[in-house]
Amino acid sequence: MKFARYGERGAEKPALVEADGTLRDLSGHVDDIAGDVLTRLEALRDIDPASLPVVEGAPRLGACVGRTGKFICIGLNYADHAAESGLEVPPEPVIFAKYTSAICGPNDPILIPRGSEKTDWEVELAFVVGKKAKYVSEADAMDHVAGFCVVNDVSERAYQIERSGQWSKGKSSDNFGPTGPWLVTPDEVGDFDALHMWLDVNGERVQDGSTATMVYRVPFLLSYLSQFFTLEPGDIVSTGTPPGVGLGFKPPRYLKAGDVVELGIEGLGTQKQVCQNDT
Amino acid sequence: MKFARYGERGAEKPALVEADGTLRDLSGHVDDIAGDVLTRLEALRDIDPASLPVVEGAPRLGACVGRTGKFICIGLNYADHAAESGLEVPPEPVIFAKYTSAICGPNDPILIPRGSEKTDWEVELAFVVGKKAKYVSEADAMDHVAGFCVVNDVSERAYQIERSGQWSKGKSSDNFGPTGPWLVTPDEVGDFDALHMWLDVNGERVQDGSTATMVYRVPFLLSYLSQFFTLEPGDIVSTGTPPGVGLGFKPPRYLKAGDVVELGIEGLGTQKQVCQNDT
Repeated sequence: MKFARYGERGAEKPALVEADGTLRDLSGHVDDIAGDVLTRLEALRDIDPASLPVVEGAPRLGACVGRTGKFICIGLNYADHAAESGLEVPPEPVIFAKYTSAICGPNDPILIPRGSEKTDWEVELAFVVGKKAKYVSEADAMDHVAGFCVVNDVSERAYQIERSGQWSKGKSSDNFGPTGPWLVTPDEVGDFDALHMWLDVNGERVQDGSTATMVYRVPFLLSYLSQFFTLEPGDIVSTGTPPGVGLGFKPPRYLKAGDVVELGIEGLGTQKQVCQNDT
Repeated sequence: MKFARYGERGAEKPALVEADGTLRDLSGHVDDIAGDVLTRLEALRDIDPASLPVVEGAPRLGACVGRTGKFICIGLNYADHAAESGLEVPPEPVIFAKYTSAICGPNDPILIPRGSEKTDWEVELAFVVGKKAKYVSEADAMDHVAGFCVVNDVSERAYQIERSGQWSKGKSSDNFGPTGPWLVTPDEVGDFDALHMWLDVNGERVQDGSTATMVYRVPFLLSYLSQFFTLEPGDIVSTGTPPGVGLGFKPPRYLKAGDVVELGIEGLGTQKQVCQNDT
């Protein structure tokens, strides 16, 4: 199954996504794709999609999950991206936080903060926690995953690296977390360790990778994180980016107003963002 | 005015705190000390406390603010604490994140994570955002502060420093964020740049400082943070700790099950936590 959230920011409604992309409104069954609903997505499988109202027109899509408590990112989780950043793959996962106020819809504009000169892109596979997880084994980890989605881990490299740390400072500006378009259940994703992923800037492919080159994989990450704190339904874990970020170019390349960023992961849909100066 | 939240975790009710510590239930006026209520605390000044029901008994206190979106901490913000950590005061504030799932009541137990050997304490002055703030000047900053409270920025030093970063990993375990007992409005706090603050472990004073030695002060911090992202009502900013943390002792001292931690800040009340092994 695929789920989406549509409508005005802060008032999104839940929808089921059909194979042809048609959205069908789920408001009659659940209040949101969020919280406890994530623990019982399976129950929605019994609904006949034809019984749900078609969502007309082309509404804005919100982030594909609501009420996220933790937005956890894994750093340097692709060996070749670590290399382009001039860093070693760490002996265990690097965790950093994006503040949840950065979360936005998959096609909302990227807002370039006032004075920013180093706003960068990162296509990432994210998983969404579906069931409370604490001290969970790797073997049991997937029982706690509601689904997968695309995240653009937008990053301001000066804020992240040159402005007295920690990384959260450069990872959390408004709209730095486009999430979606869809939350896709694991059964529908299939082999999440071999998904093609890409990102284009103004039509030029800059990231072209695969989850096959991830260092720390999804079940390990869920288990690992659950040793440090309780993961809760709606928490998002974004698992790192393959090579091709702006910082890795020689010279580096960064986003400016008017640039168009398009990205996607096989089976998880695509995002498109136009860059704007924040006001 | 002083506010508190009392009752079972996740179902706390709002209360006004009288000078003698009596709690009076505010449920008839506001649903919580959270969100939009924080933007209109002043309106509660017109309520005659005697008209509010007295809260009987000694209920559990929750964190003094609810629905926090961002739990932002400032690192190395006391020159003498930076020195005990063997680090320089940074040229601009260090920001790191505690995940909001760490937030708990002021007297809830400190849970020592499985296998943890370096759980540490940090008494801190925190401020709570009362009004949305983006690109706010230092001169206007205090218009966006709802009040102040005590935070114990509980930290696991091995997770924070020895386990491949970033600091969030050692700052976010369950119950690592006791917050309260009270949210105290700025007019009642008075000069927040000269508040005595202390922390005792098993009756021995280990931290004994004053906000007078903070490097980056509250109005500057609010303005600074608002250049990176929007601050929202309910966001907590914990402003750093004075010397005397366990990491700074020679040899270092850490918490174990049964230890009792008591801490407070002048005018903001006290916290008391008993350490337990997490299960």
